[in-house]
Amino acid sequence: MINKLIEKIKKTGAPVVVGLDPMLKFVPEHIKAKAYAEQGETLEGAAEAVWQFNKGIVDAVCDLIPAVKPQIAMYEQFGIPGLTAFKKTVDYCREKDLVVIGDVKRGDIGSTSEAYALAHLGRVQVGSKSYGAFDEDFITVNPYLGSDGVEPFIKVCREEKKGIFVLVKTSNPSSGEFQDRIIDGRPLYELVGEQVAAWGNECMGDGYSYVGAVVGATYPEQGKLLRRLMPKTFILVPGYGAQGGKGADLMHYFDEDGLGAIVNSSRGIIAAYKQEQYGKYGGEGYADASRAAVLAMREDIAQALAK
Amino acid sequence: MINKLIEKIKKTGAPVVVGLDPMLKFVPEHIKAKAYAEQGETLEGAAEAVWQFNKGIVDAVCDLIPAVKPQIAMYEQFGIPGLTAFKKTVDYCREKDLVVIGDVKRGDIGSTSEAYALAHLGRVQVGSKSYGAFDEDFITVNPYLGSDGVEPFIKVCREEKKGIFVLVKTSNPSSGEFQDRIIDGRPLYELVGEQVAAWGNECMGDGYSYVGAVVGATYPEQGKLLRRLMPKTFILVPGYGAQGGKGADLMHYFDEDGLGAIVNSSRGIIAAYKQEQYGKYGGEGYADASRAAVLAMREDIAQALAK
Repeated sequence: MINKLIEKIKKTGAPVVVGLDPMLKFVPEHIKAKAYAEQGETLEGAAEAVWQFNKGIVDAVCDLIPAVKPQIAMYEQFGIPGLTAFKKTVDYCREKDLVVIGDVKRGDIGSTSEAYALAHLGRVQVGSKSYGAFDEDFITVNPYLGSDGVEPFIKVCREEKKGIFVLVKTSNPSSGEFQDRIIDGRPLYELVGEQVAAWGNECMGDGYSYVGAVVGATYPEQGKLLRRLMPKTFILVPGYGAQGGKGADLMHYFDEDGLGAIVNSSRGIIAAYKQEQYGKYGGEGYADASRAAVLAMREDIAQALAK
Repeated sequence: MINKLIEKIKKTGAPVVVGLDPMLKFVPEHIKAKAYAEQGETLEGAAEAVWQFNKGIVDAVCDLIPAVKPQIAMYEQFGIPGLTAFKKTVDYCREKDLVVIGDVKRGDIGSTSEAYALAHLGRVQVGSKSYGAFDEDFITVNPYLGSDGVEPFIKVCREEKKGIFVLVKTSNPSSGEFQDRIIDGRPLYELVGEQVAAWGNECMGDGYSYVGAVVGATYPEQGKLLRRLMPKTFILVPGYGAQGGKGADLMHYFDEDGLGAIVNSSRGIIAAYKQEQYGKYGGEGYADASRAAVLAMREDIAQALAK
């Protein structure tokens, strides 16, 4: 799957992931009105609104991008109907040949991580049959529990030819509170990064490992250092756009061939119609606004990489 | 909710949580056969088996214990039907007046943690209505992202009078890989523990905070130290039984009044019928075996605390 991701990045010329994090406040009124008219102001109604919103965006941008990253929390808050919309979104994006990165940030002790790995990447056995429950292509994983909490994910990736991105240095303002603490003269995120590289060495695709890392766009100096520390690790970069990361900050996350990283934008794309520069599209044209925002983001990154 | 948890511990004399982590291999054959006959060897069939299994155990032990801790991964692996069984289990246990600790180990950047907090502890707004999606009493939270990833959970706890347990020192063999690394002369888990205590100071129930900590039974020396470092923090202690923790290891997790901690056992209780000492119950008597195991665990802990 890492090979497919890289092929699609080359084909689209866009190392861009669209984060499908559909907070209700991002969903245009006409979509909510229709969903609530059909299903009421219920969890089912919210889930229907979110699904229709996603579908419009995916249809509008799927030829431009290699991958999407649905954030499961935004669906989980709507309970079973919400998670059903998550699953529909995953399936629909895979039908459109997009690589699907489930942003689930799971991680637990070994036997529990194994269950999460089956839930999201593998197949669970029920009697003589087996089923893929959510069946994303990649997921994000939290490393706080150490190797035996991460290895069950890697095992399933190996079997299913899928991948993970392990949190190394996250994009949020307080990520340094623990991740930047100094251990033997080096910050914790470096140790985690080194461990991710070590896990990844055993899990190579053609040029990069299918054990990747998450490094926020909001910390470009750390990105530069981690790029060198993890030479075969693909980096998923959140925090572009709404969180403050800019194209110019991103060049050091990439290798000289323009590969090695993929940059996520969520609200900057899916709620583009709410920004002044895309205001002309209005709520009815939200998907076209998202398309325009993807094109602008692709250009912004291309310019940064051309320097 | 922390006050209710403590009242129930006093009433039952059992600082015991039963971990409802129903791997299919723990479910007796007669339950699986019936569920598969009704719903096929499908995710629905697996979910039905898990739910019936849980119900039997809850009915058999609910008068003995204050709380249960369903591990969501074991349900998530069965997709939407599995998560429906999780929700049914949560609701059923709350009907039985048990405190429900959702072992979900969520944690993300602020806006995403907010969605998880609403999903599991709060109420999500849909138009003019609001809904509690999973509606547990407590959940477990991963601290790797720092304060702004944890505070949204605390905010919802304050509003809803609920609580969280933050991972400090986990029970698994490789928990030390990052958690034990030395920072300014002290291991990371101490820094996290100190931060948990600081968060908790602003969130006090009558005697303890509703911001609790997870400290594994498998690390009794660390438990002793953390008990002193976090005097108002209630400690959720996994790792008793199957993972190797014993009653005698646990005394230092408690305060002198016998409060301050609650000990989880999962497979040691729910799969007791598979152990030699409870073998006489057989698969058909699995719930009675679980009851016997709860009584033995209560006694084991009481003896340790009497020393």
